[in-house]
Amino acid sequence: MALIVHKYGGTSMGSTDRIKNVAARVAKWHDAGHQIIVVPSAMSGETNRLIGLAKQLMEQPDPRELDMIAATGEQVSVGLLAMALLAIGKPAVSYAGWQVAIKTDSAFTKARIESIDDTKVKADLAAGKIVIITGFQGVDANGNIATLGRGGSDTSAVAIAAAMKAEECLIYTDVDGVYTTDPRVVSEARRLNTITFEEMLELASLGSKVLQSRSVEFAGNYRVPTRVLSSLTDPLMPLEEEANSGTLISFEEDTNMEQAVISGIAFNRDEAKITVLGVPDKPGVAYHILGPVADANIEVDMIIQNQSVEGKTDFTFTVTRGEYAKAMGVLEGVKGEIGAANIVGDAKVSKVSVVGVGMRSHVGVASQMFRTLSEEGINILMISTSEIKISVLIDEKYMELAVRALHKAFDLEKE
Amino acid sequence: MALIVHKYGGTSMGSTDRIKNVAARVAKWHDAGHQIIVVPSAMSGETNRLIGLAKQLMEQPDPRELDMIAATGEQVSVGLLAMALLAIGKPAVSYAGWQVAIKTDSAFTKARIESIDDTKVKADLAAGKIVIITGFQGVDANGNIATLGRGGSDTSAVAIAAAMKAEECLIYTDVDGVYTTDPRVVSEARRLNTITFEEMLELASLGSKVLQSRSVEFAGNYRVPTRVLSSLTDPLMPLEEEANSGTLISFEEDTNMEQAVISGIAFNRDEAKITVLGVPDKPGVAYHILGPVADANIEVDMIIQNQSVEGKTDFTFTVTRGEYAKAMGVLEGVKGEIGAANIVGDAKVSKVSVVGVGMRSHVGVASQMFRTLSEEGINILMISTSEIKISVLIDEKYMELAVRALHKAFDLEKE
Repeated sequence: MALIVHKYGGTSMGSTDRIKNVAARVAKWHDAGHQIIVVPSAMSGETNRLIGLAKQLMEQPDPRELDMIAATGEQVSVGLLAMALLAIGKPAVSYAGWQVAIKTDSAFTKARIESIDDTKVKADLAAGKIVIITGFQGVDANGNIATLGRGGSDTSAVAIAAAMKAEECLIYTDVDGVYTTDPRVVSEARRLNTITFEEMLELASLGSKVLQSRSVEFAGNYRVPTRVLSSLTDPLMPLEEEANSGTLISFEEDTNMEQAVISGIAFNRDEAKITVLGVPDKPGVAYHILGPVADANIEVDMIIQNQSVEGKTDFTFTVTRGEYAKAMGVLEGVKGEIGAANIVGDAKVSKVSVVGVGMRSHVGVASQMFRTLSEEGINILMISTSEIKISVLIDEKYMELAVRALHKAFDLEKE
Repeated sequence: MALIVHKYGGTSMGSTDRIKNVAARVAKWHDAGHQIIVVPSAMSGETNRLIGLAKQLMEQPDPRELDMIAATGEQVSVGLLAMALLAIGKPAVSYAGWQVAIKTDSAFTKARIESIDDTKVKADLAAGKIVIITGFQGVDANGNIATLGRGGSDTSAVAIAAAMKAEECLIYTDVDGVYTTDPRVVSEARRLNTITFEEMLELASLGSKVLQSRSVEFAGNYRVPTRVLSSLTDPLMPLEEEANSGTLISFEEDTNMEQAVISGIAFNRDEAKITVLGVPDKPGVAYHILGPVADANIEVDMIIQNQSVEGKTDFTFTVTRGEYAKAMGVLEGVKGEIGAANIVGDAKVSKVSVVGVGMRSHVGVASQMFRTLSEEGINILMISTSEIKISVLIDEKYMELAVRALHKAFDLEKE
């Protein structure tokens, strides 16, 4: 008997028939003697519907009030799932985040979980009940509802698994695991049986949509074994088989395994590049450029400062395309102040990254990557590296070509 | 400057455009210097949609889980209304019932309010904010969400007005006040400028849909001046005019006013009659008949026990039509035990009532009523009276005729 957390996405909760499927799957695990906590998302489309209503009233909805509205989608889901379980004779009880309580800070629409009280949930589990908890939300110190932002239910599930010391957190989703890259771009893309937490974190933050990156951080910080698996399989498939399906995010670099140098290739189309040309190279220049951008709540991704020439330097960074115009506007406003010669930008760029803990112990990954791109005639606009990742910014029209070429060059189609 | 509670029904909250209208009306009252608390219902159709989802999963939805789901409709409404006010520059904040907190008992789907904490709301009002609170719901001693049942937002509004010692509770609805009877049945029906709390209570419990009867009880117990008025008027109409429109539920029998004998005529089509024939007339017979009915959660309305003849009596009562078959089944099951000769029923009956505090000091109301029905050839099946009300049960096909004849007989069309 183990304590297991299940998380189901909006598609799995999309209709009452699908909710019955979720209930059948959960019941199977409970019948096998496990203690089960379920964290369902809002029914698919519901969060968008609610945000849509809000935007009809305020172009920039008030964050506290938006959370008040958006949080209801998950509340409906937990009640419906509890009913679906009760209807098939399984003891179940639902809780909203504030009832548990899941305490967050007060950063409405992007709150962070601070603590989870396990008292109620433990008592219910001990009494044999299946406990269903709203994802995506908690309550701040003043009793206000705060949501964790898009994809926040993944984070809720992992955080609850951590707080309850669950044996595993199963993220049921509409893909059957983590792939070496997006199969829609590379047909030879292969599902990984395991991936390390660090690789998953890089993939998640690089735009792979399988898991929200904050949930991976949580899994890493609290060492919660987390598995991504399909919610589209027969809910009554053998439990043993289901328990080993998908991709497990692990916390050990398994020395028995043939460690691949590269685990996967991530990409992100949603990039725009801005270059501030000819700024005086003196202390504080980065701050004076990025300060106003941060103050405007614009998130910056890659950042590069060139070697200075004759006391002047160029400063380049990327933002999402949706914030490109805003960022350009902010910089035009401070251009004189920072003493820039010019500001230029390009909104038609994409980022491609190779990720793998294996590159720690293998030299030559970067040169292999650059050679491959060069052979395809693809120009590299920016480079950024971390210990287990190399990212390049390229013209968006070459993105698919780059991903396919790199997938082949690193032998990712092979087991 | 006064503290005023506004309550808006689901139709008034039915779209974002209508919510903007509500915001404009609320802003007008706030601009005039009043402190305003608003209690909006769920957007029209939303509660039915949520209950419909629940019923797809459980024929008889689990009450606690149903409340979890149903309560979200009002939560969306308060957030949207807060945004509509913020969008026009008015300070506003929304609260769910549990945040205030509005404490209830644990009778899910039909909970009763036990207490309301005024701390947060008072502080917000003192800071100049418009406070928006979910109707229909509260939180029990164990932190579970509990709803008050259909029409519960009226009760919430009046209870909040009582707890906050508001000067008046304005119930904005899609009718412009309380009428002498339903204008769809009697075209001469007239709107009343005032009605006493006791009359309103009788009308509400007799099936007049203007106000939920529990809200009238609350208004009476806590002497909350409550006004029913139209939400369909121009939100920018002069405040003075709006403040005096509709029907005020008053708490004094105003001796200066020409007191009408009868204030209104109520009717209810949703009645079914059951008669238990030839039961031994001994102590406990009523209990032995109605006990099993109450145990089956069937609500009984009118009850009559005939004068006994030769130690046997007949026992008649009415239930709603939806529960008629169930009640008949319950009684067939205990027929032998209670020693009844037979059980007969009629589901095609209606109740018509005349209501008025004036009948306390006027004899002859009953005889006038019975004569009028007799002149129309309408047979009376049952009679039930209270201090300010006389109800008769008649064949449903005569209902409209009876209402029209009584409206005329008591001169209700005249001011």
